[in-house]
Amino acid sequence: MRDFSKDLSALALNTASLGHNLDGYGAGWSTEAVIDACGARGFGGIVFWRREIGTSAQQIGDRVRAAGLEVAGLCRSPFLTGPLVPGDDAAIMDDFHASIDMAAGLGTEVLTVVTGGIDPGTKGPLESQKRVADRVARAAEYAAARNVKLALEPLNPMFGGNRSCIFTVRDALHMCDWIGLDNVGLAIDVYHVWWDSTLTETMPRATGKVLGYHVCDWLAETRDTLLDRGMMGDGVADLKALRQLVEETGYKGYCEVEVFSAEDWWKRDPNEVLDVIAQRFRSLC
Amino acid sequence: MRDFSKDLSALALNTASLGHNLDGYGAGWSTEAVIDACGARGFGGIVFWRREIGTSAQQIGDRVRAAGLEVAGLCRSPFLTGPLVPGDDAAIMDDFHASIDMAAGLGTEVLTVVTGGIDPGTKGPLESQKRVADRVARAAEYAAARNVKLALEPLNPMFGGNRSCIFTVRDALHMCDWIGLDNVGLAIDVYHVWWDSTLTETMPRATGKVLGYHVCDWLAETRDTLLDRGMMGDGVADLKALRQLVEETGYKGYCEVEVFSAEDWWKRDPNEVLDVIAQRFRSLC
Repeated sequence: MRDFSKDLSALALNTASLGHNLDGYGAGWSTEAVIDACGARGFGGIVFWRREIGTSAQQIGDRVRAAGLEVAGLCRSPFLTGPLVPGDDAAIMDDFHASIDMAAGLGTEVLTVVTGGIDPGTKGPLESQKRVADRVARAAEYAAARNVKLALEPLNPMFGGNRSCIFTVRDALHMCDWIGLDNVGLAIDVYHVWWDSTLTETMPRATGKVLGYHVCDWLAETRDTLLDRGMMGDGVADLKALRQLVEETGYKGYCEVEVFSAEDWWKRDPNEVLDVIAQRFRSLC
Repeated sequence: MRDFSKDLSALALNTASLGHNLDGYGAGWSTEAVIDACGARGFGGIVFWRREIGTSAQQIGDRVRAAGLEVAGLCRSPFLTGPLVPGDDAAIMDDFHASIDMAAGLGTEVLTVVTGGIDPGTKGPLESQKRVADRVARAAEYAAARNVKLALEPLNPMFGGNRSCIFTVRDALHMCDWIGLDNVGLAIDVYHVWWDSTLTETMPRATGKVLGYHVCDWLAETRDTLLDRGMMGDGVADLKALRQLVEETGYKGYCEVEVFSAEDWWKRDPNEVLDVIAQRFRSLC
């Protein structure tokens, strides 16, 4: 395993850790302020959310690189199935392409894909999985032409109704196999997979396919499934064991810190949040 | 698969469907009223919660049988690990034995075991799983002497911090294998396992080990992870496919309806709830 205690070059901030993924949360720092704060601390990368970027992808990407960082990824595709899709198939694909364009504009190789939930009128995950696979396969060529990879992110099964139809690394790998394209892989998020005792069996099959590794922690008393993630070390996930499994697949990318925390970390001074992230990253991740 | 359209003899009411699992919920019907209402409708069984029984296990069991029903199970063991255990090892085992005594007093063969979450100071599920297996193994002989079987219930991974350390049928079977005793099996609840695409592979390994099958539905927009379950047909679970997998293991027991629903079904007239359960059971389960 890589030694994270020496420097922060493998650390990427997902701006959701400052509440930037949702309206009305966080301290309201500008994108530029976040970039500067990460650069000053020696972080290696930043991951943005589409709502932060608007029409300024190119400029923001340049700003990140000028600060000595990389854009490590973009969150995220639209939901491709389920009750929260942006419209009919054409609307879904248009928005999927727009997210790919934005990733390309930022100069990042990785677009996170959250699949969306169970399509109304269907039962169980299988039919929705097939529809997701079809849409991802159709978008993948468009993405490849723009040097963008699509990272399928399995979500905790609690998001199975409306946000995801893939729930485990195995589900994501199964979908990757269906699609069979080089620029489609997976993102692994501690929050979603920490509980899965089969990872020791399934992770080796992800060799060469891991495009992102997201860390936070699972709080024993999780008060809100979406917005009460824990800072690394405050929960029950076995962080080092998980990273070891991820790195054994050959993954050498960023360790992306993504802590959705409406009632705790999002209410603190972002400087404190970033300092704690850096400290926990060095010692606990 | 059994034909449920003809009669309700395979239907068991879990009294949680009327809010009887928690203080302050439901219409407040007496245990006797619930028994009579189930008997009048031709239900086959009832599953109670410990809080309803007090010191009247024998009398309530007799009352159920006099109404032409069986006590189909008891909810549940204390949490055996995690932050919500009733005390030290001695206190946990005492309460575990008390729940076994109550099941025996009611005259039911099945005690549902919800394992409890991740033990404080540990990381990941493995260590807690081992401790649960040890406590279940120690209690199993006591249970066997009282003709009680212990049904390990895997919970949706969203309960991984504080309520469970087994999350899939595979996890439960793995624990059964560790314990290796005839009166330890598993309970399968639609709410907890509907999302799992590996069930077609793992369920055959559960042959002869399924002690309970619980049904409700997973609402696409689940507002509360504990108390917002859906009535069968209102959600995205593939109920008939799940029952087929369960019955292919040789299970011929009750289909136990367990709908925790603080903001919907628990606010309705229990007569309406029971009638809807019966109708959905015949047509959709």
